[in-house]
Amino acid sequence: MSVPTIEWKNDNVRIIDQTRLPWEFEIERLRTVGEVCRAIADMQVRGAGCIGATAGYGMYLAVWNGEDLAEAGARLKATRPTAVNLGWAVDRQLTRLAGADDRVAVARQVAAEIADEDAAACEAIGRHGLGLIEEIAARRGGSEPVRILTHCNAGWLAFVDHGSAISPVYAAHDAGIPVHVWVDETRPRNQGARLTAWELAGHGVSHAVIVDNAGGHLMQHGLVDLVLTGTDRTTRTGDVANKIGTYLKALAARDNGVPFYVALPSSSIDWGCRDGVREIPIEERGESEVAVIDGLAGEDGRVVPVHLLPDGCRAANYGFDVTPARLVTGLITERGVCEASEPGIRSLFPEGTASTLPSSSLPVPANPHSGRLLGDGMK
Amino acid sequence: MSVPTIEWKNDNVRIIDQTRLPWEFEIERLRTVGEVCRAIADMQVRGAGCIGATAGYGMYLAVWNGEDLAEAGARLKATRPTAVNLGWAVDRQLTRLAGADDRVAVARQVAAEIADEDAAACEAIGRHGLGLIEEIAARRGGSEPVRILTHCNAGWLAFVDHGSAISPVYAAHDAGIPVHVWVDETRPRNQGARLTAWELAGHGVSHAVIVDNAGGHLMQHGLVDLVLTGTDRTTRTGDVANKIGTYLKALAARDNGVPFYVALPSSSIDWGCRDGVREIPIEERGESEVAVIDGLAGEDGRVVPVHLLPDGCRAANYGFDVTPARLVTGLITERGVCEASEPGIRSLFPEGTASTLPSSSLPVPANPHSGRLLGDGMK
Repeated sequence: MSVPTIEWKNDNVRIIDQTRLPWEFEIERLRTVGEVCRAIADMQVRGAGCIGATAGYGMYLAVWNGEDLAEAGARLKATRPTAVNLGWAVDRQLTRLAGADDRVAVARQVAAEIADEDAAACEAIGRHGLGLIEEIAARRGGSEPVRILTHCNAGWLAFVDHGSAISPVYAAHDAGIPVHVWVDETRPRNQGARLTAWELAGHGVSHAVIVDNAGGHLMQHGLVDLVLTGTDRTTRTGDVANKIGTYLKALAARDNGVPFYVALPSSSIDWGCRDGVREIPIEERGESEVAVIDGLAGEDGRVVPVHLLPDGCRAANYGFDVTPARLVTGLITERGVCEASEPGIRSLFPEGTASTLPSSSLPVPANPHSGRLLGDGMK
Repeated sequence: MSVPTIEWKNDNVRIIDQTRLPWEFEIERLRTVGEVCRAIADMQVRGAGCIGATAGYGMYLAVWNGEDLAEAGARLKATRPTAVNLGWAVDRQLTRLAGADDRVAVARQVAAEIADEDAAACEAIGRHGLGLIEEIAARRGGSEPVRILTHCNAGWLAFVDHGSAISPVYAAHDAGIPVHVWVDETRPRNQGARLTAWELAGHGVSHAVIVDNAGGHLMQHGLVDLVLTGTDRTTRTGDVANKIGTYLKALAARDNGVPFYVALPSSSIDWGCRDGVREIPIEERGESEVAVIDGLAGEDGRVVPVHLLPDGCRAANYGFDVTPARLVTGLITERGVCEASEPGIRSLFPEGTASTLPSSSLPVPANPHSGRLLGDGMK
């Protein structure tokens, strides 16, 4: 909000190092595709739109440094297999750069376009989602806060600005509608506890962090009016791949009649993908994300990693899960709210095509530990 | 398994301090009802059967120390509102002590009975649950492990011995059936990561810790054959109150056709309770359990608490949720497996009565922070 999550300045890509929030606010400078790949893989930048914009600028750095563009694109795409904006941004650059004369100027323009469009789409998502919150606020009476549960971080940090799921929350707060946000801490990396809570505090929005286990209980007891999440990849049929655990909240919402909306810029739609559970590659990350967590220790408040598991204990770490469209009340896009279905999405985006087929063009990385964990008949 | 979780020795109640596991194995001695209450409230002892047995010995200590029994019973019952074994054990002592001549001898005998019956019931649960695992193993072929997901700790640490949900796992492992356990870490107190994983490692059972968000994804992809959990209070109609997050796993099991069984000694049945979601009091605990976590830091491996939230961030902390009977495939009790329904439970326990009415006799403590978090129109 106050700073862009990504910008080009003095020949560098500048990002906020999100792994150091909420305790340290550090701007990191990226100078090469390799540095961009590391920043994405290590989740210094994360979130659908932010990853896409960073990849767009990564391709610009490749042009700037005279690197091989096909190889740079392949390296960028391989960093996070589930986020569709990554391949989308790389392919957009490659398409526009093919045959371009002034490749530096074109690459810079495309990178800026991707970032600007992302911010504009998220701002529009806020306006469209505001209508849903206004309806609930009217039903609850003006003074009762609308209680919104969210998972992971889909605020401005996850995009270039505004955010997807949190953009309507900001719009409602700015419009004077009382809102209260239940923030899933979002293990293992605690993007909710660390990023969403930090964002909401900065904007003055009432919130409380809960463990990821708590949402079902809250919904059973009528304490949630609306669930809003983002998505890292949406099939053309309305299935959504979002941070692991989203599916469980969608099930609880359905079981308790709580509306479950997913907010996304259309850059997150994978037009080539029809069945999310079968087709979307789910990233498996290192065990250490489950086994080790950072926190502030002692009176001097140093950030310290602590180990959470018994000695020698194994862990498995899946980054995302898929929420089938049947559990999604609706999608909030930059063009409005639609049903989570192929006709619903087509009604807003009739021009969508599977020509880039991100789902089949993205490599699925070998899982470094699944053989040990899931092998020997486990799968 | 190798040590009892609770025993009377040299005029003390001896417990394993479960807050120090898996890093330190310490026996703590309790000499007064006040010390027993603190041990239960601080979760040095936790788990349905273990709490019940500890409360039984707490009442013995009250007799031993000449304390007022009614007051001691009330203090013990107030420590944890959701666990039904607590009130059950206290009331059993009070009933037997009423009019007894040698109160010390009677109280000691009743405490030992409660503990011995718990261990025997859990051993029987293991035998009955083994049948379910054998059926799955036969379907999967002999060499394929049966993949069982569990939440929280319902192993021997949670009872006097054997455990409830994990007792069938031990029985299957001991019978040579290959099993693999997906251990939900179970935020906020990580009883899965800290206690269940430690127990399973000690018994040589294959396992991997997962974050609480992961179970739905695993079930969607056919990686879970059976969900087994414990329960802290079961209504006579088969609703189960268990550690927060259990309900979400039950929803995922139902959505994916995975059998979801709950294991319990009948001492966990609240015969006076008919509707779990409406009637079972859900404990709210301090925010610090969400905000702060213990782990091993640095090379010297000290246990260090670290703070996980942004400065000033609020949290809400609900200890349990209720899984409606409609989501429970069956109950595994000391008398066999039955349907999670009033007729099902009655078929095994025709003598159950609501005479002690634990649900109405247990006080619901005021929530120290709900007014701030949920007040002002939040509820």
